[in-house]
Parts: sequence; C-alpha cells; structure tokens
Amino acid sequence: MSVLQTSLRTSEEYLEHLRDDREVYYRGERVADVIAHPELGIAARHGALDFAFAKDPEHAELAVTDGFSTFYAVPRCAADLRRRSALIEASTAHGATLVSLVREIGTDALFALLRVTHGTDTYERVESFYEYCRAKDLALAVAQTDVKGDRARGPKDQDDPDLYLRVVEEREDGIIVRGAKAHTSCTANVDEVIVIPTRALGDDEKDWAVAFAVPVATPGVKLFCSDFQHGADDPWTHPVSSRHKMVETLTVFDDVFVPWDRVFLYSDTKRAGLLALTFVEFHRFTAVSYKLPLVDAFVGLGACLAEANGTVRASHVREKMTWLIAYAETVRGLTHLAADRALIDEPSGIAYPHPLTTNLAKWTFARDYHSAVERVIDLAGGLLVTGPGGADWSSPEVRPYLEKYLAAAVPAAERLAIFNLASDLLARSYAGYQGVLAIHAEGSLEAEKITLYRSYDPRPAVALVRRLASFDD
Amino acid sequence: MSVLQTSLRTSEEYLEHLRDDREVYYRGERVADVIAHPELGIAARHGALDFAFAKDPEHAELAVTDGFSTFYAVPRCAADLRRRSALIEASTAHGATLVSLVREIGTDALFALLRVTHGTDTYERVESFYEYCRAKDLALAVAQTDVKGDRARGPKDQDDPDLYLRVVEEREDGIIVRGAKAHTSCTANVDEVIVIPTRALGDDEKDWAVAFAVPVATPGVKLFCSDFQHGADDPWTHPVSSRHKMVETLTVFDDVFVPWDRVFLYSDTKRAGLLALTFVEFHRFTAVSYKLPLVDAFVGLGACLAEANGTVRASHVREKMTWLIAYAETVRGLTHLAADRALIDEPSGIAYPHPLTTNLAKWTFARDYHSAVERVIDLAGGLLVTGPGGADWSSPEVRPYLEKYLAAAVPAAERLAIFNLASDLLARSYAGYQGVLAIHAEGSLEAEKITLYRSYDPRPAVALVRRLASFDD
Amino acid sequence: MSVLQTSLRTSEEYLEHLRDDREVYYRGERVADVIAHPELGIAARHGALDFAFAKDPEHAELAVTDGFSTFYAVPRCAADLRRRSALIEASTAHGATLVSLVREIGTDALFALLRVTHGTDTYERVESFYEYCRAKDLALAVAQTDVKGDRARGPKDQDDPDLYLRVVEEREDGIIVRGAKAHTSCTANVDEVIVIPTRALGDDEKDWAVAFAVPVATPGVKLFCSDFQHGADDPWTHPVSSRHKMVETLTVFDDVFVPWDRVFLYSDTKRAGLLALTFVEFHRFTAVSYKLPLVDAFVGLGACLAEANGTVRASHVREKMTWLIAYAETVRGLTHLAADRALIDEPSGIAYPHPLTTNLAKWTFARDYHSAVERVIDLAGGLLVTGPGGADWSSPEVRPYLEKYLAAAVPAAERLAIFNLASDLLARSYAGYQGVLAIHAEGSLEAEKITLYRSYDPRPAVALVRRLASFDD
Amino acid sequence: MSVLQTSLRTSEEYLEHLRDDREVYYRGERVADVIAHPELGIAARHGALDFAFAKDPEHAELAVTDGFSTFYAVPRCAADLRRRSALIEASTAHGATLVSLVREIGTDALFALLRVTHGTDTYERVESFYEYCRAKDLALAVAQTDVKGDRARGPKDQDDPDLYLRVVEEREDGIIVRGAKAHTSCTANVDEVIVIPTRALGDDEKDWAVAFAVPVATPGVKLFCSDFQHGADDPWTHPVSSRHKMVETLTVFDDVFVPWDRVFLYSDTKRAGLLALTFVEFHRFTAVSYKLPLVDAFVGLGACLAEANGTVRASHVREKMTWLIAYAETVRGLTHLAADRALIDEPSGIAYPHPLTTNLAKWTFARDYHSAVERVIDLAGGLLVTGPGGADWSSPEVRPYLEKYLAAAVPAAERLAIFNLASDLLARSYAGYQGVLAIHAEGSLEAEKITLYRSYDPRPAVALVRRLASFDD
Repeated sequence: MSVLQTSLRTSEEYLEHLRDDREVYYRGERVADVIAHPELGIAARHGALDFAFAKDPEHAELAVTDGFSTFYAVPRCAADLRRRSALIEASTAHGATLVSLVREIGTDALFALLRVTHGTDTYERVESFYEYCRAKDLALAVAQTDVKGDRARGPKDQDDPDLYLRVVEEREDGIIVRGAKAHTSCTANVDEVIVIPTRALGDDEKDWAVAFAVPVATPGVKLFCSDFQHGADDPWTHPVSSRHKMVETLTVFDDVFVPWDRVFLYSDTKRAGLLALTFVEFHRFTAVSYKLPLVDAFVGLGACLAEANGTVRASHVREKMTWLIAYAETVRGLTHLAADRALIDEPSGIAYPHPLTTNLAKWTFARDYHSAVERVIDLAGGLLVTGPGGADWSSPEVRPYLEKYLAAAVPAAERLAIFNLASDLLARSYAGYQGVLAIHAEGSLEAEKITLYRSYDPRPAVALVRRLASFDD
Repeated sequence: MSVLQTSLRTSEEYLEHLRDDREVYYRGERVADVIAHPELGIAARHGALDFAFAKDPEHAELAVTDGFSTFYAVPRCAADLRRRSALIEASTAHGATLVSLVREIGTDALFALLRVTHGTDTYERVESFYEYCRAKDLALAVAQTDVKGDRARGPKDQDDPDLYLRVVEEREDGIIVRGAKAHTSCTANVDEVIVIPTRALGDDEKDWAVAFAVPVATPGVKLFCSDFQHGADDPWTHPVSSRHKMVETLTVFDDVFVPWDRVFLYSDTKRAGLLALTFVEFHRFTAVSYKLPLVDAFVGLGACLAEANGTVRASHVREKMTWLIAYAETVRGLTHLAADRALIDEPSGIAYPHPLTTNLAKWTFARDYHSAVERVIDLAGGLLVTGPGGADWSSPEVRPYLEKYLAAAVPAAERLAIFNLASDLLARSYAGYQGVLAIHAEGSLEAEKITLYRSYDPRPAVALVRRLASFDD
Repeated sequence: MSVLQTSLRTSEEYLEHLRDDREVYYRGERVADVIAHPELGIAARHGALDFAFAKDPEHAELAVTDGFSTFYAVPRCAADLRRRSALIEASTAHGATLVSLVREIGTDALFALLRVTHGTDTYERVESFYEYCRAKDLALAVAQTDVKGDRARGPKDQDDPDLYLRVVEEREDGIIVRGAKAHTSCTANVDEVIVIPTRALGDDEKDWAVAFAVPVATPGVKLFCSDFQHGADDPWTHPVSSRHKMVETLTVFDDVFVPWDRVFLYSDTKRAGLLALTFVEFHRFTAVSYKLPLVDAFVGLGACLAEANGTVRASHVREKMTWLIAYAETVRGLTHLAADRALIDEPSGIAYPHPLTTNLAKWTFARDYHSAVERVIDLAGGLLVTGPGGADWSSPEVRPYLEKYLAAAVPAAERLAIFNLASDLLARSYAGYQGVLAIHAEGSLEAEKITLYRSYDPRPAVALVRRLASFDD
Repeated sequence: MSVLQTSLRTSEEYLEHLRDDREVYYRGERVADVIAHPELGIAARHGALDFAFAKDPEHAELAVTDGFSTFYAVPRCAADLRRRSALIEASTAHGATLVSLVREIGTDALFALLRVTHGTDTYERVESFYEYCRAKDLALAVAQTDVKGDRARGPKDQDDPDLYLRVVEEREDGIIVRGAKAHTSCTANVDEVIVIPTRALGDDEKDWAVAFAVPVATPGVKLFCSDFQHGADDPWTHPVSSRHKMVETLTVFDDVFVPWDRVFLYSDTKRAGLLALTFVEFHRFTAVSYKLPLVDAFVGLGACLAEANGTVRASHVREKMTWLIAYAETVRGLTHLAADRALIDEPSGIAYPHPLTTNLAKWTFARDYHSAVERVIDLAGGLLVTGPGGADWSSPEVRPYLEKYLAAAVPAAERLAIFNLASDLLARSYAGYQGVLAIHAEGSLEAEKITLYRSYDPRPAVALVRRLASFDD
C-alpha cells in the first residue's frame, strides 16, 4: 500500500475537524474557533505538524505502518517499541523540541486499555474504539490527573467528592460523570478525550473507578485553557515558542453523559489502579523518547554557544560539554535499552517497555534536567536575559550597534540567533514550561523513584550478599 | 539629625530627576520619557521604592547614616559591613526579592575607586565625585562588563579594538571614549553611570585602562534596553514581575567626552586590573546580601505550597524543605561571616568583606541555585505551568470552576496566589532572569571559583600535611 | 596562677591512673594492663598527648583557664565557645587529625547535665561531680548510644528490655542498672564513664530515663573493645594510624550499682529526651571543631600530591582543589559562626552554640565528606593502594628501585611520604574509620537533617511569601 | 567437544605452573614459592578460582567456547561481547566481587594487538602468541602504566629516560628493554606478562614505542609486590578479603632481553598511541563487566542491613535503596548496551564495544562510586567500625554479651555476618582498595571524560540547533 492510500489525514483535514461546538475558554472567554484563535491556533498548527510529517515521503517508512499511522501500531516486540520511540523522537525534532502529543499519549492510553481490559467484558468496546480512532486517524487527548484536592486524603475522604472524577449517576444507556482533570495536554485541538483514573482506589471507592472516552465537543465537557505561554510574540527572540505551543486545560466534566459503548472500565477498583500504572508504563517511555531532541538541543547549544563566544578551548567548557553529552546519551541509551528489553503481556500479546529501565531513563532525565539547564546557561552568558529584542534588530537605528558590539567569534547575527534559541529554551517561559514538565509530567520525580524501587527484583543481590556473608559455611 | 533633615531624596525627587535628554531605546525606538514608558516606568518605580523605603520611619535607623543614605557610608569596620548588608537585604525584601540596585552597585564602585586610587593623583577627583553623589543622594549605574568580542582574545587582539571600551582621543580638557558595556543594570533610571574596566590588561593595553563617570544624559551615551521581561502584564499571575522590574542596557559610548575631573583612572593597566577585582570584592558581597530575600522566598514557598497541597507530612517534602533551609541559611551564614571577618585596607582605612568568605557565600548561592529551583518546583506541582490566568479568575463564568476544582488543603484563592507567586519566581521569565543572573551576575561560577582558589592561603594546610608525613623525624 | 600551679595532670599522671581493676576485653581476652597492651596502649598514649599539649607553654594560654583545663571551662559567651573550639582544633591537629576526646565529650555531657538539671533536685550532684572531675583533671567517656535492638521499636517494645540501658532495681543507697551502650569512645583509657539516654522516651518508659556516672573500674562494667584498627604496625605506610588510635567499646552494665550521688537523672522521661538533645547540641559543635584538622589535611594533601606528581597546573586539579578549599572553609566558617551566634540558656547562664548553624556545619561536613575523599584520591593516583611497604623501603635490595622509579616532580622519599599519609587517611582502615564516623558519629546524616529542620524558624520566610503572594491587597 | 576434552587447565595445573624462577619480592624479601607464601598464596588461589569456575559443569556453556576458554574467544559480534561480559560478571561473582583478572586483561591486550597490528609485519607474531596462550590456557598480566615521573613532562623530557619503559639496545636476535610499569595486577601469579605503551608519543620518542610479551620468570624481570592488603587475617571480620586478594606489582624490567618473535610493536609511535587506546577500549568494557557484582553487593547489603536493623520502612532507607538500585542498574544497562551497540573493526573483523557507551558506563560507575559507598554506610551504622572481632565471637566469655546486645531485627550472628561483610566492602582496606580502583583503574575519571568527549559525534546535535536557530529562513 503506498503512502497515498493510507488512512492518514493531512494536516488540513486534522485542523478542519477541530471546528465544532467544543466549549473552550481562554483568558476567561469562550473561544469560537480554535484554529482562528491567535494563541490556540498556534497550538493547533503545532499539532498539525505531526500530520504533515507523516505525509512527507522522507518519513513515510517510519510514520506509516500497514496503511495506518505508526502511532496506532500496537507493539508486539522490542523492534516495534524501538520504531515507536524513533517516530516520537523524529516527530518531536520536527516539532522543534516540542512533542506533538496528539496521537502519542492517546495510543499510550489505548494500549494500556487493551492490556488491562483484555479478558473482560469491556474489551470489545475498547477494541472498537481503538479501531475507530486508527481508521479515522484521530487526534486524542488523555485526561488522567485528577485535581485531587487535599493530597493527604483519598477520593472518598475529600470535602468535595468531585475532586476526583466520578460517576454520579448510572443510567440504562450510560453513565453521568462529574469532576475535573488537571494538566490535560492538547485537549482543545484533538478529536477525542480519553479519561482514565489517577491511582489505586479503595474497595469502597467504586464510583471513582471509571475510564471512558468522549468527543471533545460533548455537552458538559468544558476546557479551561492555561495561558501560561501567552504572548511569545516575537519570533526573533522566541524562535521556538512563537511557533510551537502546547496548551493544557483544566478539563471539567459537568455531569457529562457517556454511553455504555464508550465506558471502558467501571467500578472495578483493582483494575482501575492497574490501568493507571499500565498507562504510565507506556507513557513514560513516550516521554523519554520525546525528550531526546530537547537534550540533544542542549548539547548542540553548548557547542554552538562556545563556538560563538570563542571559548571552545577553555577547560571548564569541555568539562561542561562532557557532562551534557553524558546526560543526553545516558537518557538515549536507557531509552533504547527499555525498548530492547521489551516484555510481552501474555494474554494480550502486547509488548511494553521494560519498567525498571524506562523509569531509570525517565528519572535520569528528570533528576539532572535542571543541572543541564544550569550548564548550558553557564556556557552562554548573561546576554541570555539582557540581550536585544526583534524590534531592535529590525530597527535601522539600533541594529548597527548590535552588529558592531555583539559580534564575537562569529558575526552578531549568528551569535544572537544562537542566543535567542538558548534563551527560549533556557530562560523564557517556554524554558519554565519545560523545566516544570521535566519534574512533574508523566509522573513526578517521587513517582518515578517509587516505580524504580518497586520494579527492581532484589532477590539476586540479596542472595549474593547472603552467600558472601556466610562466613561459617 | 532627624530623618527629615537628611540629604535623602524622596522617591518623587528621584523620579523627577530622570526626565532629561538621555538617549534611551526600547524595542527599536527612542524613549521620550522613561517614567511614562509602560515598561521602563515600572523599572523606574521599582528603583523609587528604595527611596521610599529610606523615608519610612521604621527603616530610618538602618537606611540613614549621619544624615546621608547608608548606602553611601564608607565601611570602616565589620559592623559597618553588616549594617550595609542588612540594609541591602531589607530593601530587597521591600522590593519583593528584586534588588533596587540604584545605589548599591554604584557605592560598591565608589568604595573600590576610593581604595584603588588612594595615594594617586586622581584620588581627589574620586572623593569629590563621591561627595557629590552622596550629598545629592544620586542613583548610579556601573558599566563594567565589556562586550568582549572573541573571548579567546584580549582587548588589543580583537578584530575591532572597540570591543573593549577605550580612550580614542586625549584632549586638554578630557578624553574621548568609545566602546560598549553589556548588562548594565538600571542605566535608564539612574543619574550617573560609572565606568570601570573588566579585567587585567597587558602593559600595551593602556588605552583600555580607563575608569570614569558621566551623567546618563551625556551626548553620545546610548542606552539600548533589553526587553527580556517585557509584557508581564497580568498582576494576578505575575505578582512580583508585573510590578518589579530591572532593565539592563547595552551601554554604548559613541565617542563620548569625559572631562578630566571625571576621569578616575587612565592608562595605569596594573591599577585597572586591581580596580576590577576590588569592585567585584565589594559587589559580590552586595550580591549575596540581596540574594537572601529570594532564597528565603524559596523556603517560604516550599512551606506554603506543601501546606496548600496537603503534603506537609510527606517524608520527601521534609527532605526537600531541609535542603532548602540549609541552602538559604548557609548563604546567609557565610554572608554574615564575610562581614564579621572584615579586613581593613590599610592606606584608605576602608573595610572590605573577607574575600574567601564572600566568594564561598556567592559560589554556594550560585552553584546550588538551580537545585533549589528544582526542589521548589517539585514541592509545587504541574499547576505552575498549566494553571489559569488573571482573566480566568476575573471571569464570572470561569471562576466558579476554579474555586471548586483548584481548592486543596486551603481554598483555591489562597492556593492559586501561592502558585502564582511560585510560578513567577520559578517558571516565568522573571524566573529565567533570576536563573541566569544566579550563574552570571557579579562574576560567573568560574570567576568565583578562581577567586576562591586565589584567596585561600594554602600554607597552614600544607604545613600540617608536611608535619604529618614526616615519618622519619 | 602560673601554668605549673594548675590542677592539670601530666600525661604520665593520666596514664598511671588508668592502671586499676577495670574489666577490659580485647580480641576475646581480658586485658590486665591497658597501658602495656600493644594496641590499647597506643590509644592510651594518644589520649595522653592531650595532657602533654596542655603542659606545653606554647599552648598554655589556650589550654588552661583559671588554673583548670579549658575543657572544663563552662562557656558563658560566644568568645568562650570560640576558645573551646580553637582548643579542640589545635589539640586535634597536635593529635595528627585524630581527636583526643578524653575530656571533650565528657565536658559536653557535663555542660548538658548542668543545663538540664538546673533547678532540679539533682543539680547539686551534677555540680559536685563536675567540680570533682575538673579539680582532678579527669578523663571521661560518655556512653550514650543504646544498642537499640530492632530500630522499628522503642525501648519498652523490644523483645529484650535490656536493649536500652535501664534501672532494674532501686535501692536505698542507689540504683542497679543493666544494659549496654555501643560505640563508646576511649572507655578503656579514661577515668570515669558518664551515661546518658539516647532519645525521647514515652511516659511509660521511666526505667530507661536514667543518667549517671561511675568510675570505669566499677564492678559489673565490662568493656568489649573493638579491634577495628588492629595491626597498623608499619609506621612508614601508616604515619598516622600506627601512632594514633581511638578504641570504641561495647560498654556493658551487668547489674551495676550506682550510688544516689552519682545518679543525675532518673524517671523523668521528658528531661531525659531534653538531655539527649542538649548533649548532642554541645557535642556536634565539638565534632565540627575537631574535624577541621582532617579537612585541612585533605586540602594540604591535594596540594602536596599535585606538587609531587607534577600536575599542579592541570585545570582539573585546580577545579578539585577549589572544591576542597570551599569544603574545608565552609565547615570552618559555619563552625566559627555557630560559636559567634551563641545562645545563652537563661536559668543556668550557660552559653551554647547556635543549633541551626552547628547542624549546618556538621551536615555540610558529613554530606560532602565522601566527595572530598574521592577528590583527594583522584588527585593522588593508584599508587595509594599499589605502592610499597615500609619493609620494602628498608630493604637495600628493593629501595634503589623505588628511589629510581617512584620519583616524580619530587624525590621518591618525599613523594612516598605524602602518598603514605594520603593512603592512611583515604584508603586504609583509618580512612574507613573516619569515613564511617563522618556519617554516623555525633548523630547520623538523618539526625542532623531532622535537627536542622526543627531548629529553623520558618515564620519570617512564610510571612515574606504571604506578603508577596497577596496580589489583591 | 565435551568440557573434559577442552584445552582448559584445572586450577591445580594453573597453580603448579607458577612455581618457577620468577623474581618476586614481598615486604623487602625475595619470595621463594609464590603458592606457599601466606599472602601471595591467597592471591594465587583467588586466581585459581577462575579455572575451577570454568571446570564447573554449571558454567561450562559460558566458560568454554570451541574447546578453549571463552576469555580467549575473539569477539566477532555483539552477542560475543555480551557473552564475554556475562562470563566476566559471573566469574567475578564467583570470586566474591573481586575479579580474577588472570585472563580478562590479557585477552583485552591480545584483542587490541590483533586489531592494531593487523596488516603489519608483526601481526603473525601476535597471532602466534595469541594461539600459544589460548592453547595452553595461560594466565596473563598486562603491564601498561609507566611510572611516568613528572606528569608535566613526556617520556623524552624526564630527567631519567627510564621513567617510561624503553628499548635501550637493539640486537640481532631481539631487543633489550629497561624501565618499570606501575600497578600491574596479578603479575606474581600469571605465566606471561604483556607490555604495551601508556600513551601517545612524539615522533622523536620511538624508543618508547614498544609492545612485547615475556614469561614472568624471564631474567631481569623483577616484581615488587604491594603489601597494601596485608594481614586481613580474621575471616570472621574479613569474609571477602581474607580469602580473595589481588596483588599489584611495580614491575621492573632491568635490561630484559626480548626475542624478536615476542616484539609486537616497535618504534611506530603512531600505532603505539593507537594500541594504548584500543586496549583501553576493550579493558574498560571488561572493567564495567566485573564491577557489576560489587555494585549488586551494595544493593544487597543495603537491603540486608535495613532488614537486620529493622529500618526497612523508614522513608530515607527507601530513598537510599532507590538510588543504589538506579546506580547499579544504570551501570549494568549501559554495559549491556555497549555490547549490543558493538562496532566491527573492518580489516580484522574484531568486534569491540561501543566506545561512547562503554565510557558512559565506566564514568557512571566511577563518578558515583563513593556516593554509593556513603549510602550503604549510612544504611548500616557505626558498628561497621566499632564492632567486635572474630576472637571476640569465638570467646565463650565474650560471645554471650554480643549475642544479647547486638541482636536487632535478626539474631546477632546474622546481623554481625552482614555487618562484617559490609565493613570489609566499605570500611576496611579492601574497601579502600576498591575505592581507589574505582577512580583510577582502567583509566582515571579524567581519562574517561576525555574519551567520552572525543567519542561523541556532535554533528547531529549541532545541526538540530542550527536548524532551530535559523529564524529567518
């Protein structure tokens, strides 16, 4: 089947499909047209890049599998996971270090649902939904993180039971759900939103054990967009963030009706916890795959900044470059290894990345991210935050002074281009966005440590020690 | 003498004085009135806070010395340095973690000039200028860092000799200087700019060995302002940065005439290097003093975030809080000790902070700053970059959802206020600004390490080791 | 009063006094004469060094206060604490980086007892005992750490109630105690052993709330010496550890009778916890004071090793030296500051080091100790563990080869002397001893972190944050 | 071919072969019989373990390849490298965390020689020697590190030209070499010693460009053994080091004759540098493979110590365990990956481990080793250095007290066995030995960083950055 005969949508088709009755708010106001909106439109067009990427003949081999998007290819072996990782990495590099995420996370959730519901009554619903999404090449968001209220208490002990999303009514044709999910990425520019539980639940918390999917434009679904990255309007100083944006929503389910064929899990608290974990297993692997272009950019920035400043030969520069290389390549190496060590879920036949190795990769990424930022800042210089803006560069009155005085080992134009990129990635709000995501997205540092600890089998090490300590045998 | 009888200016007097012919550019355009400018006006009013602070009877004892601003009090003993540090700390806390810097850095330079020119022909010029500034309670910028061009080469080996500021003509009544200084803080909202050399110079680099001061409005002085912190327009999400701003300039000296009585050092390359170092000695002490409110805010944020989220009792929260406390208090402790261990410059009688201890304090601050940021981010949560904006909070349609769903162990209003502050200090452009300053301002990490190494006397440690190793005596 | 008229004992008097009926075991055998024992004798003579130090006219001013040993001088102000710290540092340097500890820890306990019992019935007993020890210039051990059994359980919940030392019988003339204390330093070569509780106790754990002192030779007191440092017999390769030794005991109280005038605290569980903490407050300050010669030796070793190897100019050598200097001087600086910030216990008038600062100093020391070791090892080379021994150096057959081939930038004799010292401090069992003490002695890393956290007053930082976050006022 | 028909020697055959005229010195005296020597005999028997291991039918599949020792199997693909790594790991675990090294390092050198001499005149000599060693199943040492003298100078600029091993005479039948190599492991208990150069040499340093092999018993070869681990005589407290030992020598070549057929490289300075690097490439892979049992033992110790103390549930214990697991598994993961990413040397067809990944693994191991030690010490307790000795445990008088008072969550016997193992690995001289090896063996930290930096291809990262920074295209 040739690329042209695939089910894959064009970026235009993707964008066009976002024009519906979805209830989206930005800066306190209802947004009539997501595509036309000055900020949300950027996010939508960033999502669209991923569709364009797959249509590019150069990437078709990687992006298309059996006529469908490779994102939808259920992994069956290590090589499939490697391929998925390679696609995520390449597509994110295409997106200028910002992941597209309009199919990555959704398929992570679908694979988890396929595994966890395997052998249960709802499996067919999941399978149908999966096939529907794949055939239509849909864009998907995943709403997992409940708003949680007081972290010291579980769902049923909150003052307001809605602080974890729950079923408030069971009807013949479906369920009514209420609650809100935080940090849902891309919701305003996808077709469907998949909802899964956050965490292990008690036996008496059945109402909160629910997973389902609805179209974004479903009545009662309200998207309150964060404006965190609002206003990166100067493309000269914001070469990445002025064109690439991801917008998170507080995703409110205001008594939303979900028909039974879209309810994938309900009241099975044990399986709810398993689903939460299984999703995260896939999603952390997605995460470390899409972090690679960003950490590569840090290494590349270090090299280009040192060259621009004329400091390539300084010993401290080499020391920092070595550290950055080791950081990037350890994350990459462990990501590759997580795929190579794939495990197969017996009943479903789905391959998943090695949990310990995935968490090693993710934790290494997250733990050292801010140290990496610090080092690249160190290699750059104060100009990161004291430099000129695009209007200065465009001004015939100002530019000559910049050209004269901000040249170094390379001309000012080149040096400032590197510094602007560095500033966007290290010091402006896009940098802050990435810096917070590094610690909290796809599981916090603490969550990663817990998974690391739990996914390690201590028996061989303990047996070794017991043998060595048996002085009297 | 009562506070009312001092020479100290009111904030209005300070602001009024900034209205002159100064040549200021912002976003490519000449700024007619710095005070009226939407961005530079914020910076000017932030500078004015410091004058208001001193007029507040509560602070008068600290802020006024012998009828003059305490900033201008030449330190003569350890207690004077402690007092200066306390003033800088208190005034920066008043300025919401952002130093005012309109008199701090200028007096650092003046103290350095008084020390270094002591016993030379130009000492009287320095003294006159110092007395003039003190009597008029002037606001001062210091332009030290040359734009430097290719870092692998010194001033005279650059393709363009102007890449380090230099004397291009000597006249009977003064000198003509040309060049540019980078990262000059507050230049657009001070009265005078003091220029000092960056570094040690070769014997054949006399033209670059020059220190002087001119009013900001001097012909040929052109200030190209950075717009790095432009547009923090929403005070709800930017509680600090929407009201407190410091603006750096690329400060160009386009063949500027400086009369002899304002030339403090010229052609003495040895003394030029000494001046550079002496200034930094005072200025790093200023720096660690004004960093204290920021690191305190990190500790306070950690505590408030944990309380708001309901995670106070989590063991990892205590671990991180302990680290943050140790960080803040080590910087504070070493700063106090740097004052307490004051040394006295014999000829001039000027006290200066203990160089080793000052650099320990500064390096400790800088080295661990990004780790501190990481920990507070960790204590907060992803909401730092996915939360609502001020317009959402003001919207009657949106706010109820925020109030319902973003409450936790405290009501949403309080929690979001803490998160907004955290986001401003940890993830938005103000955070990036502070993050870069931590590494580069007042000397880079590498510069601090070099000074640390040089200011240590290894002889006692070496003698101890030689004694211990003398096995055969 | 001249030095000769003091109550201070000579080292001979100290040693002679150790010959009594004390029940000491070493390697499974009862030791008849501690002084004559090949290993314990080294420890005793190391303890004696401290008496010799005080008799040296050069040190008399520091070592003698009002005719008594300065160790016994109750601190009343910051200067007293500085002086005490200086004495401990100087005497430890005299002892070749190994603290003497025969009066340091005992007076820490006495000061704590004087503070905690002040205003209670037993205060006079403490005071009498203190005066007796001071007048006789006695050597004292402190047995604090209970053997503790299962750490997950408190004293009364252990399978064996003796796992925390306790009162098993109350008699008219005194009490009978049973139990064992671990890690008691110097017990075999002191005159008296002071016993204090480890920790906070429950209201129903009165039997364990006991503090007292007995002569080491008291019936039922059994000292089981650790042989950890046994056999450092070659002074050429062990320049420090072959001559300086501290021996810890498992100190068993096998139904030991303590007369009432030696019982300082009994059944007051609240005060028992307070005593444990108060002792540690003084003792951590002692600890950071006596760690200074060791960390100085690391700096000195780094310098001498680099010189011997010819690597002084390598950039990584300077990097490591700078780190080592910063480490040593941060610990020293914070130690000085802990004294300078002395607090006065109101009722007793006793000055004590600032708890937060003391714990900062101790934690900084402990947290980075192994990194310091790593860096000095790095500066040295593999020869640390592959070099020749003293018998090689003495052999006319072997030595010429060593002289020829192990010379570098300095002759082999000098280089090997430095390497031997380095090996003793970094790689041999003395190094292991110091490495474990760094983490566990005078409170573990975790204990220091808890104290740090608790001794910090968060209110100013929280108030600052609340003020900054109050966007709407 | 069955295991019994292989060329592999028994441990007895290996030991018997060590009885020859070799000139070995220990503690200044000539050793008549290495096997009978109380210390060197332990090292020899440790080496013998590896031969016993291969004869064990359980390990035969791994240890034997085509009838020869797997150590001698020239790697041709990734799987071969994995197999070699697995053998090294298993055999080192068998050797109680201490590598045998009697064939590992020698084959590293042989593989390097086969690669580097491929296509040159001496290739056949190398091949013959390789086949001879393989057929005889010989034990080999490699003497690489020159004693080096002043590190600031190269071979020809030393005061004494012998400070790097060199050819002092060329004869018709061979060459005469003079000089000394440091840190040669196992020399006293192997059959042959292979000598290779340390480093890149200048064009005018041809005399130092020499690689060869001689039997250890060759006249003029003098082995001066280090006694660093002398005297670990108590197996109760030294469960590992009393039975497992590796001894390094200063290996002197006192005008040693080497026949031409044993001269593998001579006067080709370029190839000499290449050989040094190629050897290290193989040898670092060997190193990370044999470090795995040691880092596993750290994890196992942490788990067993926490269990013995009753602290398993403490949050700081889990934190430290997680770190230790991440450390061990990152080293293991990168080691596996270094094999999986094998490169093939085209002309010779020899597979070698991926240089960047190997150095990542080695650097990760080395950089964090001392932190790992610190954490296990932290999990243990002070008893590591204050506990009883074997004679105490054997004493009927003492043991009851130990049993009563040193029990915790497990009986004293078990707890002390774990502590003794921990002490041996963390605090005694074996610990110091491993601690120094971690930093210096198989290349120092600095050497690993240089190789990391050099083996990284920066072009993709730089290209990414250039693309992202090209704002105007």
